Amino acid sequence: MSKVYVTDVILRDAHQSLIATRMRTEDMLPACAMLDDIGYWSLECWGGATFDACLRFLKEDPWERLSKLKAALPKTKLQMLLRGQNLLGYRHYSDDVVRKFVETAACNGMDVFRIFDALNDIRNLETAVEATREAGKHAQGTICYTTSPVHDIASFIKLGKGLANLGCNSIAIKDMAGLLTPYIAGELVKALKDAVDLPLHLHCHATAGLAEMCQIKAIEAGCEHVDTALSSWAGGTSHPPTESLVTALRGTEYDTGLDLDKLQAVNDYFAAVRKKYHRFESAFTGIDTRVHIFQVPGGMISNLANQLKERNALDRIDEVYREIPEVRKDLGYPPLVTPTSQIVGTQAVLNVLIGKRYETISNEVKRYLHGGYGKAPAPVNAQLLAKAVGKEEIIECRPADLLKPEFEHLRGEIAHLALNDEDVLSYAMFPEIGKQFLELRSTDNLVPEPLELEQAPKPGEVKK
Amino acid sequence: MSKVYVTDVILRDAHQSLIATRMRTEDMLPACAMLDDIGYWSLECWGGATFDACLRFLKEDPWERLSKLKAALPKTKLQMLLRGQNLLGYRHYSDDVVRKFVETAACNGMDVFRIFDALNDIRNLETAVEATREAGKHAQGTICYTTSPVHDIASFIKLGKGLANLGCNSIAIKDMAGLLTPYIAGELVKALKDAVDLPLHLHCHATAGLAEMCQIKAIEAGCEHVDTALSSWAGGTSHPPTESLVTALRGTEYDTGLDLDKLQAVNDYFAAVRKKYHRFESAFTGIDTRVHIFQVPGGMISNLANQLKERNALDRIDEVYREIPEVRKDLGYPPLVTPTSQIVGTQAVLNVLIGKRYETISNEVKRYLHGGYGKAPAPVNAQLLAKAVGKEEIIECRPADLLKPEFEHLRGEIAHLALNDEDVLSYAMFPEIGKQFLELRSTDNLVPEPLELEQAPKPGEVKK
Ligand SMILES: [Co+2]
Ligand SMILES: [Co+2]
Repeated sequence: MSKVYVTDVILRDAHQSLIATRMRTEDMLPACAMLDDIGYWSLECWGGATFDACLRFLKEDPWERLSKLKAALPKTKLQMLLRGQNLLGYRHYSDDVVRKFVETAACNGMDVFRIFDALNDIRNLETAVEATREAGKHAQGTICYTTSPVHDIASFIKLGKGLANLGCNSIAIKDMAGLLTPYIAGELVKALKDAVDLPLHLHCHATAGLAEMCQIKAIEAGCEHVDTALSSWAGGTSHPPTESLVTALRGTEYDTGLDLDKLQAVNDYFAAVRKKYHRFESAFTGIDTRVHIFQVPGGMISNLANQLKERNALDRIDEVYREIPEVRKDLGYPPLVTPTSQIVGTQAVLNVLIGKRYETISNEVKRYLHGGYGKAPAPVNAQLLAKAVGKEEIIECRPADLLKPEFEHLRGEIAHLALNDEDVLSYAMFPEIGKQFLELRSTDNLVPEPLELEQAPKPGEVKK
Repeated sequence: MSKVYVTDVILRDAHQSLIATRMRTEDMLPACAMLDDIGYWSLECWGGATFDACLRFLKEDPWERLSKLKAALPKTKLQMLLRGQNLLGYRHYSDDVVRKFVETAACNGMDVFRIFDALNDIRNLETAVEATREAGKHAQGTICYTTSPVHDIASFIKLGKGLANLGCNSIAIKDMAGLLTPYIAGELVKALKDAVDLPLHLHCHATAGLAEMCQIKAIEAGCEHVDTALSSWAGGTSHPPTESLVTALRGTEYDTGLDLDKLQAVNDYFAAVRKKYHRFESAFTGIDTRVHIFQVPGGMISNLANQLKERNALDRIDEVYREIPEVRKDLGYPPLVTPTSQIVGTQAVLNVLIGKRYETISNEVKRYLHGGYGKAPAPVNAQLLAKAVGKEEIIECRPADLLKPEFEHLRGEIAHLALNDEDVLSYAMFPEIGKQFLELRSTDNLVPEPLELEQAPKPGEVKK
């Protein structure tokens, strides 16, 4: 039985990759009956960016979205992306917050927790995986794929075995940058299948135009699960198109069994939805193979361009491209994914603009070198370490071991606005915008940002 | 030695597929030094639509374009697409015109002639292949890929053997509609390699999102040559991205040997060029898997939509989709490519709008049934045949056997405007617009259509 199972990312990663995570719940719900009827293995619908965008821009309660989706999708598993001990935020949380978060998400309808750590430090997944298992849900451990002198097949096999030992129900290969190439994908999957007796999931961004080929070679090597996006939201920085994979495998031993007519119908719906969000489309969402030249992910490139533009230094972007691999090397080759992509990118910009490497060291780089995010894949630059951390003792243990329980404290801080644990967790994840959201709600002032850029007429002005 | 060779279609099929064939020679020439340095096996740069667009819209002499490209690309083979006995037009030409055309194109710099017939009737390739060989150039025979009850692997093998017997130097699998699926591609290539000792070329449109996967499976099965387009002009109705394939194969036994940095540089150039032509971009150039549902190629869909819009009947397009496979069946399952796609599509529209099937039969369908385009892949509908052709005798021979030499006659018709054989051939291919072009040239009035839609100010009007 080598049937392939499909996870559609239309409700999370597709709009995160293409329109800055702006899709609203009201545009998801009308499609749910159709989606639920497709027969997907799961629908990815939640993660750090969707949570953030709900609170910040859409003025929607992300927990409410989850409950509504659960009610509208009774037959299909819901899936989320969780940043390990960082949960949906940018810092490590204490274990009691991690447990509370996972429990609450499970209660509200989450079925599959895809859990990753930006350093592939398995200790940062322990609590989340344990909590997921205790909630009776599916814990999916993640391998963040990257390339470097220390990232070879053997290193990923070791990681895969570690994830199996943690009690994960399955393993995801997460190729956030589109760095994976098809024959490496095949090799990696084969080696993992030989080493670990767990189902494999492949999450491959289409940025560099290689994701479809990676899927095919991974499937042939034994990968049973792939992530895709309905075609109107596929390609470019998003994912390979669902319908294309279904067509490619139809009539073969890998046949997904999904119905192209049904997929076409729900895709037609989402094609129309995408037009509503044209304001948020990036100028170019085509193929971008620069990641294979500069080793800089496409998503980072636009971020860097923005940072440089703000400082009137866009002309120095090529220097930054060349600096990023240097910083990454100095930091022991972290995979570039939230939050390491931001940490490395920002330091590279500093190095270039100041003109002297590490003349200024960001607080995040200091915390990183100090061990505050976990263990780097390779030894860091010793000189830089000495300069950044001085004589302070390096954290060798799991960073969260140093954190005291904090949920009750957080609850106290936001007690005047929080109606339930969900609200406390929203505040915990995003202290500023979470609090602001709860304040606006308390005064009945939740207004989503407009879909169109036109300004409302100013007082006294008459709009034609 | 399983190295893969690349033909880039950036100068022909990419802009034909994406911006209605509007790229100008002036935008090609500055890239030629870079293109010539890549190491492509060939650059596709000429065909029916480029020739037509040059005369009709760009007011460029297509022969001049060819000579200029040849001069600017001394190291790289130039390649063209030729419609067999139809040459670049829509009717069968006499053999002397075919010979004259091929000779003249060879003289002006063409190296590789990819020759196809819409019915896969090999007799329609004979003269063009022979003429190409006589000119000392590369004759590539083409298999137009399609699906139907009579199009199986065995039928394509038979065709491949026929092409080899004709003396072709290589064979192209032409998947104009994006109908090919990866595992069929692999099977087909393997069977062809077993049957025929010629290099294989794969030309796969990315319309349905399967082309990259088809390339991979074809390459693994022994296909040595693939067509791609530089990434800024790739995807959708165009072709898979060059850089992605090069990256996918790097370091494997199939390594193309092409340099990603050089590709990135020339792609940056063409990315900027594309912006100039935004007027001609279609609204949606994403993935379209409808061909696998309706069996109607994406390119035909937009054509049909236009035909129906003109008659205020766009709401009947679904009926037309359903009618097309019926007409195609009645006509003995021709592949849908110029001119059969137009013949089938127009008759399907007639059938639906008139409300009674074949109440009106187009002249082209009559000629088709009469045998005027060659032999249909399967027997045609006998009732329809009787109705359309009556008691006239069916053409069983090669249609061009019935044509008298006509080049001297054509030369006579256009003698007042033609300066050379090239001009006579332009007129022969496109009698109306070719003549109009030569007339405008004679009065020094060749003005290309504008790149922007803004109107010039009318007399008396002042533009702000
Ligand atoms: Co992703
Ligand atoms: Co083509």
